[in-house]
Amino acid sequence: MIITIIGVGLIGGSIALALKDNNFSTKIIGVDQSAENISKALELGIIDQSLELKEAIKISDLIIISIPVNVTTNVLHQVMDNISYNTVVTDVGSTKREICHSIIEHPKRKNFVASHPIAGTEHSGPQAALRDLFINKFGIICDQEKSSDFALKTVENMYRALQMKLVYMDSASHDLHIAYVSHLSHISSFALGVTVLEKEKDESTIFNLAGSGFESTVRLAKSSPEMWSPIFEQNSENISEALSQYIKQLENFKSYIDNKEFSKCFQVMTEANEIRRVLDGISKGVLEKRS
Amino acid sequence: MIITIIGVGLIGGSIALALKDNNFSTKIIGVDQSAENISKALELGIIDQSLELKEAIKISDLIIISIPVNVTTNVLHQVMDNISYNTVVTDVGSTKREICHSIIEHPKRKNFVASHPIAGTEHSGPQAALRDLFINKFGIICDQEKSSDFALKTVENMYRALQMKLVYMDSASHDLHIAYVSHLSHISSFALGVTVLEKEKDESTIFNLAGSGFESTVRLAKSSPEMWSPIFEQNSENISEALSQYIKQLENFKSYIDNKEFSKCFQVMTEANEIRRVLDGISKGVLEKRS
Repeated sequence: MIITIIGVGLIGGSIALALKDNNFSTKIIGVDQSAENISKALELGIIDQSLELKEAIKISDLIIISIPVNVTTNVLHQVMDNISYNTVVTDVGSTKREICHSIIEHPKRKNFVASHPIAGTEHSGPQAALRDLFINKFGIICDQEKSSDFALKTVENMYRALQMKLVYMDSASHDLHIAYVSHLSHISSFALGVTVLEKEKDESTIFNLAGSGFESTVRLAKSSPEMWSPIFEQNSENISEALSQYIKQLENFKSYIDNKEFSKCFQVMTEANEIRRVLDGISKGVLEKRS
Repeated sequence: MIITIIGVGLIGGSIALALKDNNFSTKIIGVDQSAENISKALELGIIDQSLELKEAIKISDLIIISIPVNVTTNVLHQVMDNISYNTVVTDVGSTKREICHSIIEHPKRKNFVASHPIAGTEHSGPQAALRDLFINKFGIICDQEKSSDFALKTVENMYRALQMKLVYMDSASHDLHIAYVSHLSHISSFALGVTVLEKEKDESTIFNLAGSGFESTVRLAKSSPEMWSPIFEQNSENISEALSQYIKQLENFKSYIDNKEFSKCFQVMTEANEIRRVLDGISKGVLEKRS
């Protein structure tokens, strides 16, 4: 299968490496606005060839769009307008509702599968690509009833080749859930980063005391603003609601501290400990299911 | 050197394992209110012997207090009232000001060294002890001018035996800094945990979408309320201030999202990216210094 990857960064590059490894692809074509990314991806053996989008579309069986979500919609339409009857298209963006909505009336809608592999690191670019990034992680497929059986099967097989576990849901549910378990985590981390960096201006030695706990909670603050700003824009309503809930929890906790109601702090922490169950679930993985 | 460790949990147990490994100790005596912890610590070879506190004090060269900070002060006084002229005492609590203040007038103050090894995991108890927990991490010594040269040297040597890098500061600065780079991280994580768990009540499948980013930011929410509640109590003023700053950052971010000012979101994330410098510093370690 000839595969075109549009956007050969962390995610696109990691998909390419994994699909080459297991021979799911016969050829990987890279398309990227950045000549630097293309030359790096060729040098690292992530892609076999670089082509202009128009040329790549003509010869590809599967086209994977892996670029920031604000530019995905435009590129997706460009692609969909020019594919053949048999070409399958998927995107891997962190928001799904707006992208799915934009394509709903397209005559070739059935050739498209909206998806989101839940995997990543705080790094960016082809040099950050990892061939084992997706193993045992979740791949979400959205609004699968809008895709043809052939397109769906092709994308499912691709995710299985990445060794991902598949979960199915509608795009609106996806965006709501992901606001809580991914987008909110990123904002909590960005905000923690700037809070401590601000304090450092007065207290220059502050980071001598930072340990692995701080490192863990602030890791996502290293993430790319180019990628995340459009995600926050496309999922603004769900994120705003999640942030309200989070701020409310923090304000409650602060009021317990200020009012010396430490038994209430204790209670909240005990409730939060329940997250062990969830994290154990993440570590162990859950059953593949299709709703 | 005969060493007594009061509290054979994660930290006390890890210290014991490391000091036995490198022969810094000739014997490790364990003191713990929990018979279960003692029997587990004996079984795992963490301690050589269990004794009542009174008996342990009589024969120890070094006494390490490793229990929740709310009970440290009482136990510290009990110990200090009964030690010989040559016995050195240290504590390893996450707050230092209140503990140092409580002991300031004690006739044997010079035998005491206030310290804090910046290391830990989200787990608790002797079964969570790790012999390499402290390697290349920071050990903070507070108010060192209040300790005798002999006591200071003993505790410094102990931390060096744990392969820690030493940093010195007054106890008030310690509590201020640690509020930002440790205590705040824990609260951000506890609050994130309860926010998502609350949402799960309505959206039961929410955690199918959780990935490694969420896992990283919420990891500390597994931490022990018994240990952390007293820390928040003893450092309430600094933590309240740090939380105010954090909540302010989150409210700003939310208002940028609500008002569709995404260039401001972008700006905050770019500032937060600066945390790379800090985390690289943490990973590489910084020079040992003594102020």
